[in-house]
Amino acid sequence: MLGGSAVHFALAASFFTEVRVVGPVGDDFTDEHFTVLTERGVAVDDIEQIEGGKTFFWRGHYDHDMNVAHTDETELNVFADFVPKLSPASHEAGVLFLGNIQPDLQRDVRKQASASFAALDSMNLWIETARDSLLAAIADVDCLLLNDAELRMLTEQPNLVTAANAAMDLGPGVVVAKRGEYGAMLFTADGPFAIPGMPLEEVRDPTGAGDSFAGGFLGYLDAVRVDGTHDERALRRAMAYGSVMASFNVEDFGTARVSSLSEDEVAERLAAFKRLTHFHE
Amino acid sequence: MLGGSAVHFALAASFFTEVRVVGPVGDDFTDEHFTVLTERGVAVDDIEQIEGGKTFFWRGHYDHDMNVAHTDETELNVFADFVPKLSPASHEAGVLFLGNIQPDLQRDVRKQASASFAALDSMNLWIETARDSLLAAIADVDCLLLNDAELRMLTEQPNLVTAANAAMDLGPGVVVAKRGEYGAMLFTADGPFAIPGMPLEEVRDPTGAGDSFAGGFLGYLDAVRVDGTHDERALRRAMAYGSVMASFNVEDFGTARVSSLSEDEVAERLAAFKRLTHFHE
Repeated sequence: MLGGSAVHFALAASFFTEVRVVGPVGDDFTDEHFTVLTERGVAVDDIEQIEGGKTFFWRGHYDHDMNVAHTDETELNVFADFVPKLSPASHEAGVLFLGNIQPDLQRDVRKQASASFAALDSMNLWIETARDSLLAAIADVDCLLLNDAELRMLTEQPNLVTAANAAMDLGPGVVVAKRGEYGAMLFTADGPFAIPGMPLEEVRDPTGAGDSFAGGFLGYLDAVRVDGTHDERALRRAMAYGSVMASFNVEDFGTARVSSLSEDEVAERLAAFKRLTHFHE
Repeated sequence: MLGGSAVHFALAASFFTEVRVVGPVGDDFTDEHFTVLTERGVAVDDIEQIEGGKTFFWRGHYDHDMNVAHTDETELNVFADFVPKLSPASHEAGVLFLGNIQPDLQRDVRKQASASFAALDSMNLWIETARDSLLAAIADVDCLLLNDAELRMLTEQPNLVTAANAAMDLGPGVVVAKRGEYGAMLFTADGPFAIPGMPLEEVRDPTGAGDSFAGGFLGYLDAVRVDGTHDERALRRAMAYGSVMASFNVEDFGTARVSSLSEDEVAERLAAFKRLTHFHE
């Protein structure tokens, strides 16, 4: 089914701002797939369709612990020879999200983009196989988003606070640790912020939750960016919107829930997150 | 070193209310041990010292994941033949905490006490070996505190929300799921509340964190109890105080940190928890 970092990210971010997707797909990426994006107002003209190519493919499964995805099959396909070319509109975007991919590609895109706020996601595979390039990519962005286990692995620090501080020393002023069903944490010079996951009676498919989080987080930040910077209050609200979008993502398979979501539902769930987390001193 | 459910609970609760400990100890429980409790104002006259007996003993270790304690040795000792006898003062306490022990003993104490709010902690051992007695004990209390994994095991529901609802169906109107470093969740008829763990740069010893949580939680509830009932706002604040006391507990071995804590430090950390968790819509 339709999925992938860029798709989940774009759909989530589209509730807050204008989104442009850059990346390659194959012939198997149908009009129906494009429509899922365009119906949410996502600009798809930077999606390069490779004739005779096959779209990137991932298959995995989850056991009892839905926080851990087990990869059964990965086909890079059209990503294997991809050379990103940013259109003028993408070049000028204010906020840039570098989805999880080979860090050389991330650095290439970062160089082409003039974004005043760039964020990067990665994974254990690149930490293990392309560490130096990944460290260079991280040094060039303002925000690092990783799972908490990956953040510990990257920095070789078993303690999450120490790991986040070490990650900030690599360059980014904003570090987000994603924690699956336990929510996410924000680390900045202003100190930590933690938001739990929304307790849900049914979790159908956690695939893409991290990218939906990034979409809500960065989409909101783009919407409220005034002078290219973000204050702590905006970053915290962005964390809440990221959690909102991730919580919808897991309620159904693939893009089913987020692509059919209403803005009222987003606002309602933000209020639910506030009820879930706030107490009076 | 000095430890145990009753000790950790009593020290934490002593910051909020008058605490009386009921339980047996052996000759090896020294004046120094008593002094740790009495210096915090804990009433120890219901602690029964058994001549020639040895105090309950537990030894365990933690691996990389500090959320999971591995038991190396347990000696019931004086608990093996313990028959609880409540003094009039303990009988009349408004709030009762039944620490983790054989559920028959918990039921016996519950029957003797007139408390208007009783809470119970348990563990996987009793879920597996004394299920019927444990269910009867749970039916007789107002609040159940368990680790999230134990809550799932007790109710045979893999989803935490469904498990908490199933636990409320067993009797208690208040269910607390403890989640180690990820914090804790409160379930009542008013819906869920979640509080993350305080991110700490150093975690020395998680032993007793759950009991310190229970001490802060129930100690605060006893302090604000007006008519024997608690409103949602008090329960949430109690969750925050529980988290405060648990976060201090893990900062040093045994009772070292909590027994030397000041009331100012407690107030400061409550404010830190609010900064950690709150955002503006």
